[in-house]
This record gives sequence, structure tokens and C-alpha cells, in this order.
Amino acid sequence: MSEHNKTGQVMAVIRRQIAARALTPGMKLPSVRLQARLSDVSTSTIVEAYARLAAENVITSRPGAGFFVAGSIAPLDLTHMTPVKERDIDPLWISRQALDAEDGKLKPGCGWLPSDWMYEEGMRRALRKMAREPASTLADYATSANSLPLRQLLVRRMANQDIKTQADQVMLTESGTQAIDLICRFLLQPGDTVLVDDPCYFNFHALLRAHRVNIVSVPYTANGPDLVAFAAVLQAHSPRLYITNSAIHNPTGAVLSPLVAHQVLKMAEEHDLIIVEDDIFADFEHRPAPRLAAFDGLSRVIAIGSFSKTVSAALRCGYIAARAEWVEALIDLKIATSFGGGRLAAEMLLQVLTDSGYRRHLEGLKLRLAQAMKNTHERLQQLGIRPWLMPPAGLFLWCQLPDSIDAVELARRCLRDDVVLAPGNIFSQSGSASTLMRFNVSQCSDERIYRSLQQALSDQLR
Amino acid sequence: MSEHNKTGQVMAVIRRQIAARALTPGMKLPSVRLQARLSDVSTSTIVEAYARLAAENVITSRPGAGFFVAGSIAPLDLTHMTPVKERDIDPLWISRQALDAEDGKLKPGCGWLPSDWMYEEGMRRALRKMAREPASTLADYATSANSLPLRQLLVRRMANQDIKTQADQVMLTESGTQAIDLICRFLLQPGDTVLVDDPCYFNFHALLRAHRVNIVSVPYTANGPDLVAFAAVLQAHSPRLYITNSAIHNPTGAVLSPLVAHQVLKMAEEHDLIIVEDDIFADFEHRPAPRLAAFDGLSRVIAIGSFSKTVSAALRCGYIAARAEWVEALIDLKIATSFGGGRLAAEMLLQVLTDSGYRRHLEGLKLRLAQAMKNTHERLQQLGIRPWLMPPAGLFLWCQLPDSIDAVELARRCLRDDVVLAPGNIFSQSGSASTLMRFNVSQCSDERIYRSLQQALSDQLR
Repeated sequence: MSEHNKTGQVMAVIRRQIAARALTPGMKLPSVRLQARLSDVSTSTIVEAYARLAAENVITSRPGAGFFVAGSIAPLDLTHMTPVKERDIDPLWISRQALDAEDGKLKPGCGWLPSDWMYEEGMRRALRKMAREPASTLADYATSANSLPLRQLLVRRMANQDIKTQADQVMLTESGTQAIDLICRFLLQPGDTVLVDDPCYFNFHALLRAHRVNIVSVPYTANGPDLVAFAAVLQAHSPRLYITNSAIHNPTGAVLSPLVAHQVLKMAEEHDLIIVEDDIFADFEHRPAPRLAAFDGLSRVIAIGSFSKTVSAALRCGYIAARAEWVEALIDLKIATSFGGGRLAAEMLLQVLTDSGYRRHLEGLKLRLAQAMKNTHERLQQLGIRPWLMPPAGLFLWCQLPDSIDAVELARRCLRDDVVLAPGNIFSQSGSASTLMRFNVSQCSDERIYRSLQQALSDQLR
Repeated sequence: MSEHNKTGQVMAVIRRQIAARALTPGMKLPSVRLQARLSDVSTSTIVEAYARLAAENVITSRPGAGFFVAGSIAPLDLTHMTPVKERDIDPLWISRQALDAEDGKLKPGCGWLPSDWMYEEGMRRALRKMAREPASTLADYATSANSLPLRQLLVRRMANQDIKTQADQVMLTESGTQAIDLICRFLLQPGDTVLVDDPCYFNFHALLRAHRVNIVSVPYTANGPDLVAFAAVLQAHSPRLYITNSAIHNPTGAVLSPLVAHQVLKMAEEHDLIIVEDDIFADFEHRPAPRLAAFDGLSRVIAIGSFSKTVSAALRCGYIAARAEWVEALIDLKIATSFGGGRLAAEMLLQVLTDSGYRRHLEGLKLRLAQAMKNTHERLQQLGIRPWLMPPAGLFLWCQLPDSIDAVELARRCLRDDVVLAPGNIFSQSGSASTLMRFNVSQCSDERIYRSLQQALSDQLR
């Protein structure tokens, strides 16, 4: 490489460190000699790089004192923390594409049901009921843990999954994501290491980046995390936390086996690893899969969830079930960072979940999903797109594209037809899912999706 | 001091550092020699302190390597970050007392209106209207910035306060507190310094502790922050952020003067300070007070607010108005940490705020508050409790207790009568408000409050 290119590279690295706040305004840069050693280039390359960054006002020189990061506060930049190869289509890109899609767009890449598949009638009934509630329900803050009857209902629901808990171990949050966020704030500090599945729900990556922690991952198999890799990662990286999906895994649709669950917990105990089990897809299950929280008895496992997938995403309410003393501290943290809980959302959710129609709604929903799964599977197969496994339930098909076609390229191409796809690598910490794609079967009925895919595939193969 | 006491003191400091996560599990403690120098005690005192902490399993000794913080993850402990003298009655204590008060309790210390003073009829109308909305309103996530019509309405409201902005500079959040929290996550990192008013809204302290930043404060005068102190603090501590209340200041009821606003902004520019202006009490004003955001044009000032004080606290919805590029980044951060926005809450709030009855509700509310302010003032004066100033509007009276009576002691005593008070030092970073008390005039109509105060005052004076 020429000296010129080396200078450019050193400059790029420093710019990235500033964007990611590894270097912050006012901070002293390493001396020329040390930086040269760190970057494995000559001191003259560093002198040149520093001089050019100073000319660009990225850094400033204070004679006799050295070089310092210039300017005012460099805001936390989530984009620049994304691996460069995925800069354009990253977890936040897909979230915003899906959330902000205009009415005409098709969203097989999104993570939720069409609105008319949701529990509309139950929501309408709950709204009408709320309109007749006392003023306190309509106007007051919730108590710090929020609705006791709803927490008691959650305790009974968890009992059906063999998770034994009680109301003082349960608190409500504004969403499932906020539940994980509070736990991360409680247990982690910048620079800690967190373990996720590969692949996993893409927003775990965005969330963990916002916590400035290191992310490590283990491959996910049809029965749960790969145990050999799990052991190796625990040994090598001592992660503090493992965040995973229970029941139906996102994006793979895999289900944890009791054997894997037991081994994971044994290793977690040995390495003092805490586990967050995100149970967001519980109500899609035909029968409850093994839960880490059930095996562990909520000792080192924290269960979280919400009803945004089966009741309403417009109503924000999630929950955390954990050791009582952790819940106490998490409530403090929730008050400090978002103050009072959503009383109206909790009361509405309680109403919806205890409505006799909800079970019927779920039964219908599961049949409809099974049918959509079958149809989508058939249509994709005609295009040579094959599922990695056939999930027992849920809304996702995690699929292998034909002929090693690049999923990001395919997603870019289909976006021109107003089709928003979810390419594999946004789910993959290791970047090993470049030829995989997640399809939401409930959003895959429109013929235009397959036409766009077919055209894009043939364009790329040409 | 005896060697024994010095050992105990060193141990206490290390325990506090661990609780506050200045020292974390696995971290190496300073060498005995260095620790002795840092603590200004003899090396034998440190040897003794380390040995005893090791015996308690707080730290561990690794022969040849030194002493290390023991144990597994030390959860973020908000309590232990509170100044020791206020350990019992701290910001989170008051929040939880007020939020979790049973129906029988009286809450002159809380920060909100009684539920039957809120906009109950508007809420009922909005709920009935929502019950007839399309499925998407009831079931879908909001767009990433949430409701455009509500953001446009907020733009028009701000225009009335001379704050010029546009819809792409405004995003919705789950609450006013979440708005500040997102901004802190965006702009701060642990160890940064943040400036607040002394006194200020107590939850600013709890929130900033959760961000692990240093808090510095300036005395608040009847016209805004003390300018001499403000200049000195900027010089000495280079805070990155200043968080303050606009309009009617909490807890003092003071109003910013144009002269002070101008000087504060000039100094902020010189020192590259960013300002968060919390406009939560806007709708209580009789006429708009000067806003830092108006003077600055949302360049370095970020305006935030919510409607939990005048519409409903059961409905969670706040907002941020800032530079468009900051809003873009804040939306990313919101998605990463709480995912989709509350569509139903935003739609309901839009409905309530555009309801022709809301203005009438506010007019009635302001009259009622003025009357309550007068009554409370008179009743407190009979007990020798005098306001620091008479606020032009709002719900708080910041009062001086007679005869240097300790506010915390008084609060403890009245709690036995089921009266929850807000003693001055929970609002004060410097701990200089020990004989002050904040009264919420809308919660001060019950005779039992004055009986309890009178008894407690005479108990303490005896």
C-alpha cells in the first residue's frame, strides 16, 4: 500500500473512533510515536494524517501539548457503529423502512402482522370500556410497578409455561424493547460483553450498540444455541448477559430443546452469566416450548415480553419478570428514566387479555398463520427460495436464497418495486447470513412480492 | 482520628465506589502504596482495610497480582449514589411514595393534579372516538417520528411561544422524562458533567445518576439561574449539558427574565454548552414567559415537553424539538431502545388537544389553581410557612419553614399521618434547601394536611 493510502486509512480510523465516541472532544490523541506503533505505520504517515485532520478541523494541535479531538460534543452515532459492509442496510435501516413505509408499500421484511389480523374487536371493546372508567384510570399515573391485576394475570400465564413467579417479581414497561433496555442499563456498563444468537432479532444489535457494549454471538441451531460454540464463547469472552428469544426463535423459527436448555443453564451458572429471555411470540405457539426461565426458576434468567404481536402495537405495554430485588431496582431505574407507567395502556391490555374473545382470536390467528406459512413456503419454493427449517408456528420463514444470491442486493433491487425485505446479515453478528432472507408469512400474500422477487433474482443471475 | 476509624473510612469509600460502579467486579484496586497516597493515610491503614474487605468477600486478593473487586455483576445502585445524608428521603423515595400512595393518603408533595382536575371529559370523548377509528390506528406501530398532525400542532403551539420550528424537527416520545433520557443518551457519556438548577425537579437528579454523569448546579433566583455562579461553573467544570425548566420553574415557581435568558445563551455559546429546556408547565401559564428555545432558535437549545400535567398522566406521550439532524439520530436511538412509538396515545392526544373544550378546560383549571394558591398560601402562613416567592401561575409553592425546622424530619413525622411531603433537599444538589418544602396547591385542600403540619411543627419545636 502506498504511503498516501496509509495516511487515508489512519485518518479514517480516527474519524470512526470519534464518531463512535471512542475518542471524544477535548481528548488527547496518542503521541505520533505511539500512534505509529499502534497503527503499524511510519511516524511520517501519522504526522501527515494528524496534519490533514487538523486542517479539516477534526483535531486541533496545541503546541507543546499534542493533538486533541476538536469541536463540540460528538453525538452518539449509531450508524457509524454498524459494520461498514452493512452501512446502508443495517438494523435501523430495516426498522425505519418498515415503520415508515407508506400505504402502498409491501413489507414481507417487517416483524408484525397486518393491522386487520390483530385483535381489532377486542381493542374497540376495551376503548369503549375505558371511556366509562373513573377519572383516576383516565388521568392518573400508574403505580410504580403498574396494574396489579395485570401482573397477576401475567403470573398465571407464566405458570402455564411452568415459570413459577409472583406479582412482586413482575413489573410493567412501555414495551418489550424498553424491558430489555432497562435490564441492560441495570446490569451493563460500556465495554461489557453481551452474547446473542447468530442470527437473532436485528434490533438486539441496535439496542446493544446504544449501550456501547461488545457483542459476541453463537450460531443458532434447530434446537437452540450451538453448545460447543456457547462454551467456547463463555470461556473466551466472559459475557455478562445473554439475550435470546424463547418459544419461537426470531428469525429462524427454531425451538429450544430441553437438553440444550439444561446445558445452557449449567454453563450460565458456571460462568455467572445472566440471561434475558424475550417471550414476544408466546401467543403464537400451539403448545409451550421449553423456557429457560422455567428450568431456572427466574434466578439468573429474566423473562420479558409484550403483546405488540398479537393484540396491538399501537398500545405500548411490556413486562419484566425477575428476582424480586432486581425488579425493585428496575422500577427505580424506570422512574428515573421514564417516570410514571402507562396506566391506560395497562388497563386496556388487561381488558383485552381477559376478554373471552381473545382466545378465539388467537385460535383463528394461528390457523390463518399456518395457512399463510404453507402458501408462502410453496410460492418461495417455486423461486428456489428454501426455508432453513419449517417452524412449528409463528410468522417467520428463514430462507436460503438460490445460487448464493446476495440478500442485500436482492433487497435493494426489490425496494425499487416498493417491496421491503429483511436480508440475512442484519440478523447476523458474524455477517454469515449474506444469502439468507427472513419472510413474514402474514405479509406475503400479495402477488407483486413474488413478481418482484422473480425479476430481481433473474436480474442478479444474469 | 484513630487508625481504626481511618480504616473504616477507607473501607466505606471503596464500598461506595463499588456500589456506584466506579469500581466494577474484576477491576484491579490501586496498589497499597497508591491507595495510601490517594486516601492520605498510612500504608498500614490500607493493608488493614484491604484485608478486612477481602475477609468480607468484597474484594479478593490474587497473590503477586494485587487486589481485585470481587463477585459477579454489581447492579447499578441508584440508592447508594444518593448523598448519604439524604439516603432515606431521596428523589426516588419521593417518586415512589407519591406514585404508590394508597387512596387514603394525602399528597401535597406530589407533582401532579388530582385526577378530577384533569381533562376527564376530553379523555372520554377521545376514547369513544378511537373506538371508531380504522384498524391501523388501533393495532399498528406509529411511524418513527409518530403522528405528523400532532407534530404539526406542536409546531403551531411552539410558534405561540416564539419558537420557530417545523415538523421534521419534532419527534414524539413515550414521556417528557423519556425525551430527556434520550437526549442524555445521545449527547452524554459516563463521567461527563451536567449542570442543573439548585433547586430543580428532583427526578433530574435520579435521571442523571442513571447516566453516571457528574452533576453540578447553580442557585436559581427569581429571574433564572444566578449569572455569576453560572459563569463560574462553566469556567470550572465545562458541563456538556444544562437541563432546566422553562416557563414556570419547578419547584420555585420563578420565571426566566429576558435579560437572564440572553446572558445564559451567550455563555452557552462561548462554552459550547447544549441546553435542554423542559416545558412541562406551559399550559398553566397566563401569558408565555421567555423561552431559551425562542431566543436561540433551536440551535443549541432542545425543547421538550408533555401533557401529563394538564391532559392525562395515564396517557404516555412527550416530545422533543431540536435541530433536524439531531432529531434524526434521536429517532434511531428511540427505535433501538424502545422500538415503535405509541400510536394510540399520540392519536388520542391529538384528539384531546384539538377538542374545542381543551382551552375552556385550561381556563377553568387556571382559575381553580389561582384560588388554591391563595388558600394554600393563607393556610401555610398561619403555620409560619412562607413562600420563597409568589409564583405567577402553576401548582407549586416553594416555602421556607419556620425556625429553621428540618424539612426531612417534618416529612418523616407527617408521613405517620399519611401525608406525603416533598422536603427541599431532594430538589437541591448542594443540599442547601434543608429548611424548604415544596407544596402542590392542588393537593392541599384537605384540612388533615394542616393539622398534621401543625402537630409536627410543634413536636419539633418542643
